[in-house]
Parts: sequence; C-alpha cells; structure tokens
Amino acid sequence: MTSAEDAAHIADVVRDPSGETLVAARTVGPGVPVLAFDVGGTDIKSALFDADGTALGLRRTPTPAADGDRTAVLIDRLGVLAAELQADHPDVIPRAAGLVVPGIVDADAGLGVFASNLGWKNSPLRDLAAARLGLPVAFDHDVRAASWAEHRLGGARAYANSVVLVIGTGIAGALLVGGEPYTAGGYAGEIGHSPIADGPVCPCGARGCLEMVASAGAIARRYRDATGIAPDGAKDVIARAAAGDPVASEIWDSALDALTLSLAQLTAVVAPEAIVIGGGLSRAGGALFDELRARLTARLSFHRIPALVPAELSGNAGILGAALRARELA
Amino acid sequence: MTSAEDAAHIADVVRDPSGETLVAARTVGPGVPVLAFDVGGTDIKSALFDADGTALGLRRTPTPAADGDRTAVLIDRLGVLAAELQADHPDVIPRAAGLVVPGIVDADAGLGVFASNLGWKNSPLRDLAAARLGLPVAFDHDVRAASWAEHRLGGARAYANSVVLVIGTGIAGALLVGGEPYTAGGYAGEIGHSPIADGPVCPCGARGCLEMVASAGAIARRYRDATGIAPDGAKDVIARAAAGDPVASEIWDSALDALTLSLAQLTAVVAPEAIVIGGGLSRAGGALFDELRARLTARLSFHRIPALVPAELSGNAGILGAALRARELA
Ligand SMILES: [Zn+2]
Ligand SMILES: [Zn+2]
Repeated sequence: MTSAEDAAHIADVVRDPSGETLVAARTVGPGVPVLAFDVGGTDIKSALFDADGTALGLRRTPTPAADGDRTAVLIDRLGVLAAELQADHPDVIPRAAGLVVPGIVDADAGLGVFASNLGWKNSPLRDLAAARLGLPVAFDHDVRAASWAEHRLGGARAYANSVVLVIGTGIAGALLVGGEPYTAGGYAGEIGHSPIADGPVCPCGARGCLEMVASAGAIARRYRDATGIAPDGAKDVIARAAAGDPVASEIWDSALDALTLSLAQLTAVVAPEAIVIGGGLSRAGGALFDELRARLTARLSFHRIPALVPAELSGNAGILGAALRARELA
Repeated sequence: MTSAEDAAHIADVVRDPSGETLVAARTVGPGVPVLAFDVGGTDIKSALFDADGTALGLRRTPTPAADGDRTAVLIDRLGVLAAELQADHPDVIPRAAGLVVPGIVDADAGLGVFASNLGWKNSPLRDLAAARLGLPVAFDHDVRAASWAEHRLGGARAYANSVVLVIGTGIAGALLVGGEPYTAGGYAGEIGHSPIADGPVCPCGARGCLEMVASAGAIARRYRDATGIAPDGAKDVIARAAAGDPVASEIWDSALDALTLSLAQLTAVVAPEAIVIGGGLSRAGGALFDELRARLTARLSFHRIPALVPAELSGNAGILGAALRARELA
C-alpha cells in the first residue's frame, strides 16, 4: 500500500460516521508505549498507550467488509489505524503491538483458527500484523485478553481462579487458573457454545447452545420473534418483564434458567472462586446478578457458590488486555 | 487401644467373609516403602508398597460401621490394618502413609470436609491418621488420587490436560491441568453432582444431578423401579437394551444423553485433551465409549472433541494414587 492509499484510508476512517471516540476505564500502568487493537466482527477498537499506560486516540471504527476471509482487509486497516495514531502522537513511539480477535485462537502459534463472522481459517494474523506494523505483535483471544485485564486491573483481581463471561451478542468466556489464563490451545471457555438442553441449531453447527437462548442478542431476538415488536435490546425486554409483560417474563426467566444451568455446571466442575460477568447483559445489574445468585444457590447444595461480580472495565477490557499483552512482549 | 484389642481386630478382619485379596494392575516404581489406604463408604483397600513399588497384602475389607461420624472407628481400623501388614511383612518398613477418602476433601488442610456416607464434617483425618500410625500421612481425595495414578501410570499418561471420571455407584471426577491436579480447594470435579436438567432430587440436596440418571448405580436402580426386576447391575441393563428390551433401551439411552450433555459442557468450557473413564460403567466398553463419542461429535461443532479412553488401573487406581502421594512425602 502506498502512502497516498494510506492517506485515503485514513480519511475514510476519520469520516466514518460510526467511528466513536472512547475513554478507557483504567490505565495499564507505566511501561513502554504500545499499540493495541481489539478486533470484532463489526468494529475495531484501536489506541496508542503511552509510557504512563494511558490510552491515546482510543476509538471504535468499523471492521472493513470483505466476502469470505477478511484477513487481508483487516491487516491493511490495522496499518492505516497505526499510521493515523502515529501521526496524531508523533512523540509516542510504540515498541510492540497487541492484537486480539474473536473466535478460536491459537495464541502460541499466532493463528486465527476460526471466527464465524470474520471468515478466516488458520490465518497467521500475528505474523501478518507484525510485518505490516513493523513491530513485534502479541496475539490473543479477545475475551481471554479481556479476562486478563479484568484479572490484572478489574473485577477479578482478588481471585486466582475465576471465570470471566462476556454476555453480549454472543456469550464468550475465559478461565483463569492459578492466576494464569487457561486456554487449552484456544478451545477452553466456550461457554456460549456449550449445550444446555435441546434447543435451536446454532450458527456454529451445534444444537442448544447457551448463547442461542441467553445472550443479550438472543433475548432481544426471541422477544421480537414472539411479538413482532423490536425491543430496544435485552435491557428493554428485562424492563418489560419487570413491568408484567408475560412474553418478556417467560423469555427472561428461561434465559436466567439457562444461564443458571451453565453456571451450575461450571461451579460443580471447575469451582471458580468468582464468576465475573461483563458485556451488555451485565448492565442489567441486580436483575441479573441477584437472580443468578438466588437460582444458583437453590440449584446446588454442598458446592462452593462462586462470587458473582460485575466486570469493571466496561467495553474496554479487550483493548486493555491487548495493551497488557503487548507490554509483556516489549 | 491395647495390643490384645489390636489382635482381636486383626482376627475380625481376617475372618471377615467380604475381605478380598486383590492384585494391583501396576507397580508404582522404585522408592521408599509406604503404606496406602483407599477408604470408601463400604470398604477400605489397604496395602504395603515395597521398595520396588509392588503392593504387598493388597486387599479389600469392610469399612467399620458407626452411627454418624465414622472418623474414630476408621482411624482405629487403619491402625489395625497397618499392624497386620507390618506383621505379615516385617522386613518392609514404611516411611510414610497415603490416605485417600471420598467426598469433599481439603487436601492442604488435611480435612475430610464432607462425605455423605461417612458422616464427618471437617474431620482432621490426616493428623489423626499420622498420630495413630506414627508416620507422616499424605492425604487426598480418592478420585483425585486415582486420577493422579491414571495420569502417572495409566490411561491419562499421554495427556497434560485431562479429566478422569469414575462412573460407579456415583459419578466422581478429577481434573488435571498442565499435568497437575486442579482441585479448587477440593470443590472441583464434582461432575456427578452437576445438574443436567430438571430431574429427581439427589441425596446431596441438589436437583437433577448427573449421577441420579447416569451412574451405574442409577441405571440399575431406574430399571428396577420401572420393571420390578432387579438387574445384575448396569451391565445387565445395557445387555437387555442390546437385546431389544424397550425399558432398558430408554433408560440406557437417557443415561447416554445425560452423560453426553455433561461431557459436551466439559468439552466446551474446559476442553481437556482426554476424558479417561473408569468405574463399573467403563466395563461396558464399546457400548459406552463408541456411543459417547458419536453423540458428543453429533452434539458439538468446532469444539475439540477429547479422546475418550478407558481407565487402565481398574479398581486399584485409588490405592496406587495413595501410594504415589505417600512417596511424594517420604
Ligand atoms: Zn453454538
Ligand atoms: Zn447431587
């Protein structure tokens, strides 16, 4: 890509109406400056973290579209975003970059193994990004990086054995064992795609996945399918349930039951000290946390009920985790 | 206890018609001699392991009965069994003992926290046994010790991340993470008491526990309850299912479905490389392993399906694990 193309891309990004400036909940503390990218199916968060650990230029921009494998357009866009951050902050020279992506990730090999909405299969994202950026790149799964940030900086920092769940469009999870991420080659933590019972077929190909019933996205979709009314997200469905809407009540109740079953399995088998819940659904507050705590306690017996605590880093845990990972390289 | 009382106890043990001499599947390898005890709700396995790691005098004797907390009678019996082993093998001087028990165990604190059929609550079994035996005692959960033996000597030895399930009267489990037991203070691995759906209330107090539907004991009990015919164990129910008995088929099918759901949860969340299955039900062979593998594959999608492998140490994994633990102390 030429500089002229770069400039045109930057202009696209700047002009994009869905670009959004964000503020990080925490610094990552002192260290070398690093770039960080949190790539999702619909948007990319990018920032330059300075020597104090403050996120400079943190913003959300759309993930570039492409048919099939979006590796090439993504790597290209990371280069553009990096150039833009550098242009805005010429005195802050990054020594490494952190890149986190969704799906199945082989962090050790630097591979994006699979991501249903990004189209890649075994894509060497770490090495491609390193070549494009001219920096060493730390590469990880987005929710594992987010959970690492929650562990180091946020809601999980008091616990050596914890599970971080992000309940939004889908449900993603990450385990911390003995204070370290437990990844099982990238296959661990797929709580959203764990079957809870017979249920609808999931886009992943399995049947009865938790996130088809209990994600924020599923709760809103189920209400719309049942009533023809498009709710303003899961939060609206929960509010309608509280106000006595019987359809909303049934959907919210069944979502809570499904989450309870999954958390009960997790409690019996893994017995984490805490389950940290973030993502859009966590903003339901007591309606979520108090209900889950009560149902989990009713459902189990001698088991050690984990503390259920809200994530603290809001939507920025992923990019904070990417910055922490990059710092570990630099 | 006096020597005369000891002698009377020994005579009891020797005369007990349910005492049974056993042969261990493996040696534990060279090292110092150790005593080992694997305590269950109905019987105790005991042996003296010599410097070659061969189990001497390995046998099964009944767990002494008592109302409520059976700590005192158990510790007393361990002393008697130790004296008997010493009398039979005067040249083999144990330097430590290994004691493994069921239920909730706090291995670090040496406590039997809870065991439904042994009646104790926070019983300091390690220190009591050490005082009675005059030896340092390594103390652990029976299935965790068995899984450790399967890891070191048996079916799990190729895998750093694995789960060992023992499906017998109940269903117990133990996790190995990075080649080390993962215990979560004794609360991890309770797969038998993880809820799979609405179901009968379990003696543990929870509802819908896996072992109420899918343990070998439950399969036999469910058949008896449905037909009035007492089967010769789960194996008999499985044989009747294969021969076309519709009641047996329905029970075995639902047990397999429940096991599949639980293993699917485990695969999605923990993603072990292998699930090693022992206990009475594992002797069903292909009827169990091939069915579980097929159902698990059908139920999941992108997940990494674990190898499903039979345990290799038969019923002696627990006492081999106790001996390994004792060796670590000595
Ligand atoms: Zn799925
Ligand atoms: Zn139970």
